[in-house]
Amino acid sequence: MREVVVVGVGMTHFGISEKTNVEMFAEASMEAINESRITPGDIEALFLGNVFGGLEEGQKNMAPFAAAELGMPNIPASRYEGACASATLAIINAVYQVAGGIYDVVLAGGTEKAAAMGTAFATRAFQMASDMRFEGPSGITFPSVFGMIAHLYSHKYSIPLDRLKKQMAMVAVKNHENGFSNPKAHLKKQINTDDVLNSIMVCDPLQLYDCCPFSDGAAAIILTTPEIAGKWSHIPKPVRIAGLGSATAGSLGDQKDITRIKSREVSAQRAYKQANLTPDDVDLCELHDCFTIAEIIATEGLGFFEFGQGGEAVQRGDTNKGGKVVVNPSGGLKSKGHPIGATGAAQVYEIVKQLRGECGPRQVEGAKVGMVDTLGGDLGIVCNILLKR
Amino acid sequence: MREVVVVGVGMTHFGISEKTNVEMFAEASMEAINESRITPGDIEALFLGNVFGGLEEGQKNMAPFAAAELGMPNIPASRYEGACASATLAIINAVYQVAGGIYDVVLAGGTEKAAAMGTAFATRAFQMASDMRFEGPSGITFPSVFGMIAHLYSHKYSIPLDRLKKQMAMVAVKNHENGFSNPKAHLKKQINTDDVLNSIMVCDPLQLYDCCPFSDGAAAIILTTPEIAGKWSHIPKPVRIAGLGSATAGSLGDQKDITRIKSREVSAQRAYKQANLTPDDVDLCELHDCFTIAEIIATEGLGFFEFGQGGEAVQRGDTNKGGKVVVNPSGGLKSKGHPIGATGAAQVYEIVKQLRGECGPRQVEGAKVGMVDTLGGDLGIVCNILLKR
Repeated sequence: MREVVVVGVGMTHFGISEKTNVEMFAEASMEAINESRITPGDIEALFLGNVFGGLEEGQKNMAPFAAAELGMPNIPASRYEGACASATLAIINAVYQVAGGIYDVVLAGGTEKAAAMGTAFATRAFQMASDMRFEGPSGITFPSVFGMIAHLYSHKYSIPLDRLKKQMAMVAVKNHENGFSNPKAHLKKQINTDDVLNSIMVCDPLQLYDCCPFSDGAAAIILTTPEIAGKWSHIPKPVRIAGLGSATAGSLGDQKDITRIKSREVSAQRAYKQANLTPDDVDLCELHDCFTIAEIIATEGLGFFEFGQGGEAVQRGDTNKGGKVVVNPSGGLKSKGHPIGATGAAQVYEIVKQLRGECGPRQVEGAKVGMVDTLGGDLGIVCNILLKR
Repeated sequence: MREVVVVGVGMTHFGISEKTNVEMFAEASMEAINESRITPGDIEALFLGNVFGGLEEGQKNMAPFAAAELGMPNIPASRYEGACASATLAIINAVYQVAGGIYDVVLAGGTEKAAAMGTAFATRAFQMASDMRFEGPSGITFPSVFGMIAHLYSHKYSIPLDRLKKQMAMVAVKNHENGFSNPKAHLKKQINTDDVLNSIMVCDPLQLYDCCPFSDGAAAIILTTPEIAGKWSHIPKPVRIAGLGSATAGSLGDQKDITRIKSREVSAQRAYKQANLTPDDVDLCELHDCFTIAEIIATEGLGFFEFGQGGEAVQRGDTNKGGKVVVNPSGGLKSKGHPIGATGAAQVYEIVKQLRGECGPRQVEGAKVGMVDTLGGDLGIVCNILLKR
């Protein structure tokens, strides 16, 4: 298999957009294309993540229209969907097809209009990523899944709920602080733990600031081989794809312990093994903080901290800049925003920018290895990408 | 790149089903798994095509639940969507990842509940595969796109509409005759040209029997390398994937001539080139006869007949059993049915069964090379797969 590198990244501002999904994706893609100084005609195939184009815009079959919008109307173009992990799935499929020698230069990413759906409808729509035979009829939504996880976590590890809530609040404070210096972030607002603990209750124990927003946005990356990147001497420092992982799980009722996400543990191990790296090698991580408790359990599932220690790690500042592993320097889903079909590509965008040293005030000094972690549905799918300078 | 073979195929009955998409896909998959005499545990990844799971069942993120249903809950599993070409896209992604050495044994296919949507709603839902910025607001649906194509075809090639309508009716008669001996077909009903020409008008000049039905159903295939298939001495005759093609186009307004589908011409040429075959080598073809006129123009775009000669070829019987190229021996979308996200996999199912000589009364004698052709949206995407004995 060939090595694969990222030679260009692009991302729209995350927030509320008047543009269509195709237009947002074209904007992000043109940034990536311009940055890599190739032309749309150099791209051989398009890999597009999107979840709710049909429901939001009545737009299925989005990939051909995205290709046409970008001036590459006859290339192979596919849409990938795995709930919030859709863009990561698109990128993994793209990397594998470049690695396998099918294509030399491809465009991959995702786009979503989640803010446009409105909060109440979006919460119901996101429920579609649960198993609708067994979970849907119960009325469970994602805030309730992660609310349950928080209670179970508190109980399992004998951490008083008040203490856990403070640790969760510190996740929100950190991610808002990081996002405040990200010019593309949706919620650019510094907050403190009192703001979190005084915000309205969404689903006990999750309060408003424990939850990420619904955002519109798109992100895209250009992938090729190191040999081809080397021939294009003007390419900004290529960043290597070091390892990939992807794994799935069945419905919640089949999960033994929802404080530990089996699909993440399997996926992350695959990525570490492929990259010949360990969690200790990771300098920074963009992970799936759809809720603050989700960040805490993700740092454990990815092997950064012992199970039951993720909250303590936050309290010690281990996930802050300068800490053991910098988590969500972009602001994460919590502050940067969560246009679900674009999120995985935006995570890769941040890691690539960080590994190149282009992040200005939010730069993680000396970053050499970065991890992307995207969760789709209520624990149904996790995708991981390890990137290396 | 490694060679890839099909070692097992499965398909549900097409028609109206009480099962969910996941359950139908599991049924088709277990047929493929049992036939290849592997176990679910031998499968390394799942590639699933589906279009309307969200709209029909409220079920997004379907691939992980399909994997769990089949007893392989932690494997990588992705959903692919390119309108009616979704399963073909899934299979192409799967073939490339086996060819590229990423996986050794994979399951690919698709599932859809289109009958369950009801005709009126399905027609509106299918419109979502058009460009909703430019075509949606015009109110155009697929019967009207193909009605326009029929009128333009008649005009362009100076074929009187009455004559073309008779040729179109002969497509329907042939496909219903073929489907009558297919035990899994949706519309098992022999018809004559008068039945077609006396059926109700859907969208001038397309009458009811010019249109395929909306069906529920699923189909799945097992892919591996010839070396691995050879080690499993009990595998039924493996059929080789000889060439793949996939191409896209923008919205209808960007098409120069909708009687010639550019995405098909580009896609088919890619497949022929990869296989080092020509249209003359093809013994049988499962192609996208969503409407009778669609079959006529497809036989031209695939290179079987000169442009403007497809209707005459039907009249001469060139596409019947014993003709130049047998088209839609399964009954095609027209009689076998069209569960859109499953159609491409069902086309592969038929070609594999034919190349193995397992089709009983509908067997194409001496079949050595077969072509799969799936169209998605109103000309937006075409995928082709050449298979060889």
